[in-house]
Amino acid sequence: VPAFRITLAYDGTDFAGWQIQPGAARTVQGALERALERITGAPVRVVGAGRTDAGVHAEGQVASAELATALEPDRLRSALNAVLPQDAAAVAVSRVADDFDARRDARAKHYRYRIWNGPDRAPLLARQTHHVRRTLDLAAMTRAARDLTGTHDFASFQAAGSAVTTTERTLFACDVCGSAPGEVWLDFAGSGFLRRMVRNLAGTLIEVGSGRRDPASLPGILAARDRAAAGPTAPARGLVLRRVDY
Amino acid sequence: VPAFRITLAYDGTDFAGWQIQPGAARTVQGALERALERITGAPVRVVGAGRTDAGVHAEGQVASAELATALEPDRLRSALNAVLPQDAAAVAVSRVADDFDARRDARAKHYRYRIWNGPDRAPLLARQTHHVRRTLDLAAMTRAARDLTGTHDFASFQAAGSAVTTTERTLFACDVCGSAPGEVWLDFAGSGFLRRMVRNLAGTLIEVGSGRRDPASLPGILAARDRAAAGPTAPARGLVLRRVDY
Repeated sequence: VPAFRITLAYDGTDFAGWQIQPGAARTVQGALERALERITGAPVRVVGAGRTDAGVHAEGQVASAELATALEPDRLRSALNAVLPQDAAAVAVSRVADDFDARRDARAKHYRYRIWNGPDRAPLLARQTHHVRRTLDLAAMTRAARDLTGTHDFASFQAAGSAVTTTERTLFACDVCGSAPGEVWLDFAGSGFLRRMVRNLAGTLIEVGSGRRDPASLPGILAARDRAAAGPTAPARGLVLRRVDY
Repeated sequence: VPAFRITLAYDGTDFAGWQIQPGAARTVQGALERALERITGAPVRVVGAGRTDAGVHAEGQVASAELATALEPDRLRSALNAVLPQDAAAVAVSRVADDFDARRDARAKHYRYRIWNGPDRAPLLARQTHHVRRTLDLAAMTRAARDLTGTHDFASFQAAGSAVTTTERTLFACDVCGSAPGEVWLDFAGSGFLRRMVRNLAGTLIEVGSGRRDPASLPGILAARDRAAAGPTAPARGLVLRRVDY
């Protein structure tokens, strides 16, 4: 059966995250598999590049799937958009080699954490930004972000209770852009991320920007290898998976 | 009693428009008056600069009100944001002369009509853009928009059944920006607008961009003074009242 790569965008607000769960939770993976089953008439299992948490958005999540269909990729994309729920969409579909695996073959993932920084809430940005009232010191955040790029043990930024073989990861980029007050973006690119790592990095950088942590404190937090050494988990609504490179 | 000018942002999706209606409709005016009544303990009537329709958003709607309060404007803004619903916010509050009237004294209103132009829907933009699938010809739309600026009788762009003394209005600017495919903005600035005028102009410009109307047809449409001569009303979700000048 032919193998496909499906690029998805979704508003994560009303999804219980990417991954299928026991019970009736509304997940993106579940919605995609149901849509593909309606199109192909056969059971489908997809593999996603990143298991986004409940409330996390995507502009370019990638899934791989073997599908018993003769549809051309463009027709499959249109068919998917006709049956997917309105808060999800296929934005690209292509044929790939049979052994393509969206998770294993990902070379880089690009995440953006969006902050609305201002004294009052911004209703039109509310679903997709985290509201921080105190004016952020972007220079301090940029200084702190510098110490995060490269290969480090990110155990201090991993959700408590995770079980992975290694907590070493490589961040290619960690950029702070925007204006304060105004919209501030924290852009992360890396080969792989631990569970909640981006949101824990964002929560720690926000503490730096708020003057509650020293901009030079990141090497010490990394060295501690202790979740308690880092800042809080920033809310899911601010996070979007923008792109996956292969 | 002191007079105030209150600048509001709101996500119009879940409001039945600005204006209070008979019955239980959830309106922005109603939400603002209830919030002000909770703060001041007295009945309040506000005047809004623009009566936005159901589903239309605002970044800078302006309301005027006389309020029996000793609160400083900044404290009033904070108090308002504590009691307004989450999909509305006061973004500025100032004291004004007793005779200030947000509607009558407005010199210019700035509206943006946002279009997501691409073959597939964009879930993260869905609440605040109108989705147009066919790639728009922005040069043709820009050419057509040129004939709309200035003072004209805009009767062809007024919602059917409206009763106003004159349908002559002045458009200071009508700009087409963005990329197609991509996000396209239609920016309108004018001294005043007829009912549904911006959405009717947007719907007509979209027909020009889709090749269904001649870019040079706008003078004829204006001259017809007939709603049937213009294009359809574009959906409310794409429209945002950005700013009101005094």
